[in-house]
Amino acid sequence: MAKEAKTLDDLFHDTLKDIYFAEKKILATLPKMAKAAQSEELRAAFEKHEAETEEQIGRLEQVFAAIDKKPQAKTCDAIVGITEEGAEIMKEYKGSPALDAGLLAAAQAVEHYEISRYGTLIAWAEELGLEDALSLLEETLEEEKATDEALTEIAKSAINQQAEAA
Amino acid sequence: MAKEAKTLDDLFHDTLKDIYFAEKKILATLPKMAKAAQSEELRAAFEKHEAETEEQIGRLEQVFAAIDKKPQAKTCDAIVGITEEGAEIMKEYKGSPALDAGLLAAAQAVEHYEISRYGTLIAWAEELGLEDALSLLEETLEEEKATDEALTEIAKSAINQQAEAA
Repeated sequence: MAKEAKTLDDLFHDTLKDIYFAEKKILATLPKMAKAAQSEELRAAFEKHEAETEEQIGRLEQVFAAIDKKPQAKTCDAIVGITEEGAEIMKEYKGSPALDAGLLAAAQAVEHYEISRYGTLIAWAEELGLEDALSLLEETLEEEKATDEALTEIAKSAINQQAEAA
Repeated sequence: MAKEAKTLDDLFHDTLKDIYFAEKKILATLPKMAKAAQSEELRAAFEKHEAETEEQIGRLEQVFAAIDKKPQAKTCDAIVGITEEGAEIMKEYKGSPALDAGLLAAAQAVEHYEISRYGTLIAWAEELGLEDALSLLEETLEEEKATDEALTEIAKSAINQQAEAA
């Protein structure tokens, strides 16, 4: 294979490096979001997802092994941008009653990025016949979807509490 | 209201400026993606979404009007990062059989960002009682979801075609 002729294998490998970087960035960001969260419920959700993210990183390392590659991170501009927006919210809404709503929105943008990336990797793993990688990626995708749903529930319950207090 | 005490109204307005920037960036990016696409089906999908994006920008301008604000864009680091990744794919996979798969993945990352943002804005519009904004945002969210599903279908059909050709 000539170096110029990039294939779906290369695209799978490149995207794996991208999400590996992203998960590590998320792992570094979650403790800051947990610390900033005003409600106990949101803080607990971030802490739970931090533990899950560590496992997800371990699973990605198994996916690298499944394609005979060393785990390697490649700067993912998307997650850098998404987490910068979250950092901006933490700064601009510090002490504001809307802070948690902003943190929730930032976290859901992260989840949706991950859902999109894992969905793509799963489709390619299927095409490439990477059975082991497939089941690892599917396990993580289910966790990300569950996290997104849990965040939606927290957002709804926060809205209801405020409505009742009004 | 003191300038320091940012409320959910401010968060709604800030996020509206963010997605307004994002939609304009997407509108500028779609013709490049359409030009790069190898399959007619993918090119047509990007062209269709370009027309939709123009309408979505018009709807956002109506949402600004509904909250008595002038349309204003605020740099959205997330979409800058996501579209940079797409530009990288176009460059690195030019002439590769995997180019369309990469373009599809990039476009789905964009769609998921938008789905997350519109979902958030809808929840806040409900809480703030912004009825007019709500229906405009819901209309766009449905379009974004339909676009994401259409892209998934194109990805599947491309995979099947390759499998049949193999």
